Amino acid sequence: MLIITAEKMKKLLPMKEAIEAVKEAYKMVSEGKCYVPLRTNISAERHGGQILFMPGYVDGIGFAGVKIVSVYPENAKKGLPSVPATMVLIDGTTGIVKAVMDGTYLTRLRTGAASGAATELLAKKDAKKAILFGTGGQAREQLWALLSVRKLEEVYVCSRDFEKAKEFAGRMSREFEDYGAKITAVEKADGVLSEVDIITTATTSRTPVFDGSLVKKGVHINAIGSFTPEMQELPEEVVLKADRVFVDSREACLAEAGDLIVPMKKGLMGEEKITGEIGEVLLGKIRGRTSEDEITIFKSVGIAVQDIVTAAKIYEKAVEQGLGSNLEI
Amino acid sequence: MLIITAEKMKKLLPMKEAIEAVKEAYKMVSEGKCYVPLRTNISAERHGGQILFMPGYVDGIGFAGVKIVSVYPENAKKGLPSVPATMVLIDGTTGIVKAVMDGTYLTRLRTGAASGAATELLAKKDAKKAILFGTGGQAREQLWALLSVRKLEEVYVCSRDFEKAKEFAGRMSREFEDYGAKITAVEKADGVLSEVDIITTATTSRTPVFDGSLVKKGVHINAIGSFTPEMQELPEEVVLKADRVFVDSREACLAEAGDLIVPMKKGLMGEEKITGEIGEVLLGKIRGRTSEDEITIFKSVGIAVQDIVTAAKIYEKAVEQGLGSNLEI
Repeated sequence: MLIITAEKMKKLLPMKEAIEAVKEAYKMVSEGKCYVPLRTNISAERHGGQILFMPGYVDGIGFAGVKIVSVYPENAKKGLPSVPATMVLIDGTTGIVKAVMDGTYLTRLRTGAASGAATELLAKKDAKKAILFGTGGQAREQLWALLSVRKLEEVYVCSRDFEKAKEFAGRMSREFEDYGAKITAVEKADGVLSEVDIITTATTSRTPVFDGSLVKKGVHINAIGSFTPEMQELPEEVVLKADRVFVDSREACLAEAGDLIVPMKKGLMGEEKITGEIGEVLLGKIRGRTSEDEITIFKSVGIAVQDIVTAAKIYEKAVEQGLGSNLEI
Repeated sequence: MLIITAEKMKKLLPMKEAIEAVKEAYKMVSEGKCYVPLRTNISAERHGGQILFMPGYVDGIGFAGVKIVSVYPENAKKGLPSVPATMVLIDGTTGIVKAVMDGTYLTRLRTGAASGAATELLAKKDAKKAILFGTGGQAREQLWALLSVRKLEEVYVCSRDFEKAKEFAGRMSREFEDYGAKITAVEKADGVLSEVDIITTATTSRTPVFDGSLVKKGVHINAIGSFTPEMQELPEEVVLKADRVFVDSREACLAEAGDLIVPMKKGLMGEEKITGEIGEVLLGKIRGRTSEDEITIFKSVGIAVQDIVTAAKIYEKAVEQGLGSNLEI
């Protein structure tokens, strides 16, 4: 059994390869080559916490796994992560646990890779400017993904907390210097929104994070923050005027994606607003962007298959490179 | 995070202490101080395997966990264990994974400890002779448990394969020499059945493993082998004539214990045949054995709470003793 830390995971799987892994995952989802049972939720009421067990099996690659994600807001007071997560990877051909790895970094990586895959597929080829909303746990990998799939000149970073946005932009400018993009914090998005070709929202907001009337034609939007039926990051206006709306999993998004569910509940649009799954685009079953002027949206709530496929890739590379701590139990 | 191997687990938690842990577990089950959601079952059809995820949360001790048990009969051909298992222990107060340990040994230990707890509680105080059916994976810990709770003079061991029984008896005689009991393989049980005060069945048999007409008054029986509605180790005759029948979990046994379900389905007895849960006896809510002549039965299918409580005890001792491999992930 390999134990793989976040530090090692960062070295083992570059974003480009994570994007390829997640593309494989999405294809298998749309082909039905995987099995994802309902997640199990345990409430530790006395500690204000919840533990989620998210199992899955990906027949296409012969791996299964379970991601354990705990949501304990009180942890922050103790100086502990408020959403600790651990991934257990299982060899689907023998049922034997092969690796235990950091689930928090895995989530960031595969969620970044999801936006990367969608952007590669759906954003205009000559996209030059992007904006990222949110500077929390997911932000670094979201930015990394955008830089990995388009030759960007400038990425704006916008957060409720401008100081945090500046700090993040400075740190990322150094870390991703090689990509040659200028990374700039902005206090308000309104002034730059009409310039950007790509928008990524990675917040936990329950209200729209930008003004939908200001986006330009041809923009591609990745919305990865909302993951409950009540959470909305995207202005309804932009969802309604989008030409093509893609999701990671139709079933999961119809159950969890407030960005789509709220306007549906209001009767502003129907399920047919969802063009299809990103996996269907990857499989060539449906078309992605069909013109330079279209507004495209990719809405993702995150699915267990992404975790398993990405974790399997990290595990395989760890074995190849002799990295990770090997322990027999 | 601690990684704890079976070898270390054996050193960390003697059977006597495992029995105490399982007694605590049973009390908490009967008091409702724990939450065990339905297990999740993933079928890896192409590999003839099944992966079971068994999560649980024990509020009483502040630990949660998930045992991952894979049933892959084809593994034997590859020289791999056919039922590999791994336990992931989670701190219920923070949601953080604290330990990963061998699930196979944990199962053996907590299942032995279950019989140990029941025998301590229900067998006659002066029990001198016992018989153990089955020499498979569970046998060593079942024997250990019997030796731990009664001063036995002789334990008979009976298996379909007499050679295996002899080998097992020889090996156990050496290993458990200090307990001072004679451990003897018998080819047929009939000759000794009327002598024994305790019977433990730990087989995967679908048909009764002994003749119910031969048991003596006052015998206590632990039946831990059958765990599906079709499996029966106990002769129906002995179930019907038992004076007091205890279970680990009423709900679980009514769903899974063929030893009880089959005679119920045949209309030979009703649910009222079950006297109660062993936890209720431990809590003093119901009486255990009430006379020297009664036949008592303890039927166990195994429950997640046993795993979590036993694993937590092992983890705590590992921390105390600085054992186990500590790895940050």
